[in-house]
Amino acid sequence: MTTYNKLVLASRPQGVVVPENFRLETATVAPLTEGQVLVRNHFLSLDPYMRMRMEDTKSYAAPQAIGETMIGGTVGIVAESKHPKYAVGDEVVGMLGWAEMGVCDGTLLRKVDATHIPLSAYLGSVGMPGMTAWYGLTQIIAPKAGETVVVSAASGAVGSVVGQLAKLRGCRAVGIAGGAEKCAYVVNELGFDACIDYKAGNLAADLKAATPDGIDGIFENVGGTIFDTCIARMNPFGRIALCGLISGYDGEPMVINNMRQFLTMRLSMRGFIVSEHIELWPEGLKELGGLVATGKLKFRETVADGLAAAPEAFIGLLKGRNFGKQLVKLV
Amino acid sequence: MTTYNKLVLASRPQGVVVPENFRLETATVAPLTEGQVLVRNHFLSLDPYMRMRMEDTKSYAAPQAIGETMIGGTVGIVAESKHPKYAVGDEVVGMLGWAEMGVCDGTLLRKVDATHIPLSAYLGSVGMPGMTAWYGLTQIIAPKAGETVVVSAASGAVGSVVGQLAKLRGCRAVGIAGGAEKCAYVVNELGFDACIDYKAGNLAADLKAATPDGIDGIFENVGGTIFDTCIARMNPFGRIALCGLISGYDGEPMVINNMRQFLTMRLSMRGFIVSEHIELWPEGLKELGGLVATGKLKFRETVADGLAAAPEAFIGLLKGRNFGKQLVKLV
Repeated sequence: MTTYNKLVLASRPQGVVVPENFRLETATVAPLTEGQVLVRNHFLSLDPYMRMRMEDTKSYAAPQAIGETMIGGTVGIVAESKHPKYAVGDEVVGMLGWAEMGVCDGTLLRKVDATHIPLSAYLGSVGMPGMTAWYGLTQIIAPKAGETVVVSAASGAVGSVVGQLAKLRGCRAVGIAGGAEKCAYVVNELGFDACIDYKAGNLAADLKAATPDGIDGIFENVGGTIFDTCIARMNPFGRIALCGLISGYDGEPMVINNMRQFLTMRLSMRGFIVSEHIELWPEGLKELGGLVATGKLKFRETVADGLAAAPEAFIGLLKGRNFGKQLVKLV
Repeated sequence: MTTYNKLVLASRPQGVVVPENFRLETATVAPLTEGQVLVRNHFLSLDPYMRMRMEDTKSYAAPQAIGETMIGGTVGIVAESKHPKYAVGDEVVGMLGWAEMGVCDGTLLRKVDATHIPLSAYLGSVGMPGMTAWYGLTQIIAPKAGETVVVSAASGAVGSVVGQLAKLRGCRAVGIAGGAEKCAYVVNELGFDACIDYKAGNLAADLKAATPDGIDGIFENVGGTIFDTCIARMNPFGRIALCGLISGYDGEPMVINNMRQFLTMRLSMRGFIVSEHIELWPEGLKELGGLVATGKLKFRETVADGLAAAPEAFIGLLKGRNFGKQLVKLV
């Protein structure tokens, strides 16, 4: 019998996530029934949204159940198939969770081509994070050439794509990231016009200097003081794509003082979850895939080795320790 | 020579507005030149937005200049005309400010018919406040029958129209107002399904009881804690029309703690100024005028007597002392 390792949610976090919130278990692959596919996962994606799923509060999705495999995006290769659409050896993206293998009925499974695009990129720039950036930028901010777009967590899997797509659309792209190294990468490698190190302690002044014409669009991943400071720089009819609020996921208060700006500047803001806009994925993935395949969209990955490393890597992600897309290599 | 009284902005408020921020002056009507109209104002409209104009901060409009007649909507009758479109005796709505008379070139002047609609209503339900309600409800909240719409300052010139229009569209309309008398009026006279007295001290619990199915649309006039409490009750894909933040106009902090709700519930919010959407006024005023003329849209007015009473009436408006539309009767 084939066995594999998986990580289940052992307990819900009280404040910050700790390694004890997860438990490593060994599972056995049962014989496939008609319509099922067995996938050996090569990479697991770690994403901030998982933190929200760990809580038992009303949100856009049911909470992650205690004792069940942690939710998560995966890429891998079909190891066995009783499904007419999938054959052994197919490269597939799926939602098989924090596990070395997974059996599924084809739901949320998608064949991909790793000839010109690395398999891992289907969890990043050409996957959910890339689509998140694409959706928020093109469907909510919808920037015109010459406008200024600011994105927080700019070196991350989503933020890095937001700024590069904005540049391709003729915008001024300004990032916010933690630390000089990340900021240098965002400007020098990704080609943003500027990047502000929020850890340097001069956020408001640095933001003002980096956005001389104000801000027309905010792609928000962080929330809290960083977000509030950006709101104060918004131009009339500015648009805000609210994608994440990672600074508050552990329960810290996340106060917005600049609400008046929404009125005086007639701002619009919309929170979104990219999985609710599947109808736009083909269009977005086509652009993203083309840009990655031709080297026009750059990305960086932080890769943890082996499933057992996933909890610490996830905790690091929530603290901003990763640099670019956080992955776990399973094979 | 004809003389008249007017009120000018004497000084900008430091915190709350005080009577000394205004100064009564006497002006003389100069002989009309070609294209000019002289209007004797019958009513002056007092509106919360004027508080923002009194400040010298970046906003959607230039600040009110010191020493100039306070800005404001008026209805009156043409007393003299050298304008081909206006004749003596015409009833007109204009923006002639806090003054007993005014000369203008026809800009922002509009002939109205007081046969079936009282002249004063053109400053309320069939004027800018009514259009504000109509725009925010129909263009931003766009509620479906069966949805729940909550509006703050529900007995006021704008809020009262919001709830009645929502009811006409098959929604559950819930108001928030200050005091038992206003709340009784909102339910018994205006026909809202419920109205919460925020002064009663049980806002969160009362709101929960009044919105058993959550909230799909917020029409926000007040801001601060009232707004924050409503946000916490929003359903997925809820819409917020941000019209005013009167609780913060004197500079009090206006903190929003429930920003996370925007993300988890995928809320959208838009701040707006109805004067920027003039193209929709004919459609909106047609509906509002028809409803007022047939008695289907009810309103109440608080009328101060004489121009000299305007400052105190305005200060009362900012503190919620008015009941319905605040007017100043000039003739």
